[in-house]
Amino acid sequence: MMGTLTIAGLGPGDAALITPEVSAALTEATDVVGYAPYVARVPSREGLRLHASDNRMELSRAGEALKLAAEGRRVVLVSSGDPGVFAMAAAVFEALEAAPEWQDISIRVLPGVTAMLAAAARAGAPLGHDFCAINLSDNLKPWPVIEKRLRLAVEADFAIAIYNPRSKSRPDGFARALDILKGAGCGERTIIFAHAVTTPKERIETLSLNQARAEMADMATLVIVGNSTTRRVGRWVYAPRRAS
Amino acid sequence: MMGTLTIAGLGPGDAALITPEVSAALTEATDVVGYAPYVARVPSREGLRLHASDNRMELSRAGEALKLAAEGRRVVLVSSGDPGVFAMAAAVFEALEAAPEWQDISIRVLPGVTAMLAAAARAGAPLGHDFCAINLSDNLKPWPVIEKRLRLAVEADFAIAIYNPRSKSRPDGFARALDILKGAGCGERTIIFAHAVTTPKERIETLSLNQARAEMADMATLVIVGNSTTRRVGRWVYAPRRAS
Repeated sequence: MMGTLTIAGLGPGDAALITPEVSAALTEATDVVGYAPYVARVPSREGLRLHASDNRMELSRAGEALKLAAEGRRVVLVSSGDPGVFAMAAAVFEALEAAPEWQDISIRVLPGVTAMLAAAARAGAPLGHDFCAINLSDNLKPWPVIEKRLRLAVEADFAIAIYNPRSKSRPDGFARALDILKGAGCGERTIIFAHAVTTPKERIETLSLNQARAEMADMATLVIVGNSTTRRVGRWVYAPRRAS
Repeated sequence: MMGTLTIAGLGPGDAALITPEVSAALTEATDVVGYAPYVARVPSREGLRLHASDNRMELSRAGEALKLAAEGRRVVLVSSGDPGVFAMAAAVFEALEAAPEWQDISIRVLPGVTAMLAAAARAGAPLGHDFCAINLSDNLKPWPVIEKRLRLAVEADFAIAIYNPRSKSRPDGFARALDILKGAGCGERTIIFAHAVTTPKERIETLSLNQARAEMADMATLVIVGNSTTRRVGRWVYAPRRAS
C-alpha cells in the first residue's frame, strides 16, 4: 500500500511559530526526512525514524522521501520556513515528474512562516507594500539572471527580500548585489539584516544601504531592502501603504 | 501605565494555521481590534472586549488600537494572513508616526501564514523560484504604477502573486491586468485561482492564462501567475528551482 508524503514548513526557528497543522503531521509521522539541522528541530519519540541529510542534497532527499512513502510509510519532509519558498516542495515535484511510478503517492504541502515574514515582523512592516523575493544562491541560476532581476526590482520599486545572500562557497555575490543596488540609486534606502530570526542568536540590524557591507550577511541572514518610500519611526521600519 | 499592542496574523482561515505564538497573545489579551470577519475568528471569553470595524478603516482602526494600548490595555490587533503583507502593520506605523505621544507603547508584530503561501501549498510549489507580490487594490496606488509593476515582473520572469484582485468597487482592474499579462506574452503561462483557501469554501482552479476570465476572481481570491518555466505534474504546479 502507498503511504503518504507531507512536505511541511517548520517556520523560521522558534517552536511557537510551528503551525498546529504541522505539529499534528509530525505526531502522526513514521519517518521524518530533511536537512540535518531541520530534522534536529523535530522532537524524537519511540518508533519515529529520523533521516537527516547534508545540505545541497535536495533532489536525492526528495527521492528518499518519495521512496519511503511508496513503501507505505507516513513521511514528513521538513523544511525551514515555508516549504514552497526556496525550499523542498519544488524539489519533490521535480523528482515526481521524473518518476511516474510515484505519482499515486498521496502528497500534501503544509505552509509555514517563511523567513522574510518573521524578519519583516521584527523590523516593523517593510513588506507592507508590493515586494519581491530573490534567492541569491547561484547554484541553480546564472548570475546575469540575478543581476537582471535586481535591476528590474528596483525599477518596479519593489521592496526586495533576499534569501541566502552569502555562503562560504559563494562569498562574492552579495557584495556584487549591494554594488548593483547602490549603482541603481538605492544608496539611501533602508536595508535590514535579520540574522537567525526568532532563534536565541537573533540579531536585527537596520541601516542605510550605503553603510551596508557584505560581511554583515551569512547563510542564516535574511536581507530586506526597502522601497523608495520606506520610512522609519522610532526603531521601526515600514513601507507606507500609499505608493509614491 | 502604557499597555501593549500586538499586531497579529491569523493565517488564511483554518484555525490549524494560527501559530501558537498568536494563540498565546490572544489568550492574554484584554482587547481584540480588527476588521469584523477577522475579529469573529477569535474565540470569545469573559472579560475579552471585541472591537470590530468595517473594511477600509485601516488608519482609524490602527488609531483605536493604539489608543486602547495607551490607556493601559493589552490589545491584539488582528489581520488575516500575515499582518505585514497588505494588512494592518503598516497602518499602525503610519498612525504611530503621526502621533508622537504613542511612541512609548510596547509594540510587537507576530507573523502569520500569508494567503500566497497557503495558495501555493495547495497548488504545489509555484513560488519555488523568485517571485513578487502585488496588491491590485488601487485605492492607495495609481493604476499606472500597478501596470508598470506587472510589466516589469514579467520581464524579470517572476512568478506573480496577486492580492485583492477584484472587488465590487473595483470590478475592472483585474481584467486589465489579465490583458496586460496576455499582451506581454504570458498567455500560455499557468494561472492559479485560490478562492477562500483553507476554509470550507476553498476552491482551487488551475488553467492557462489565455483561458482565464476576470470573473473567476473576487476579494477572497489569491491569484498566482507562474513564471515562464512553471510546470505541471499530475494535479500539481511547480516552479523548477533552476532558472531557464
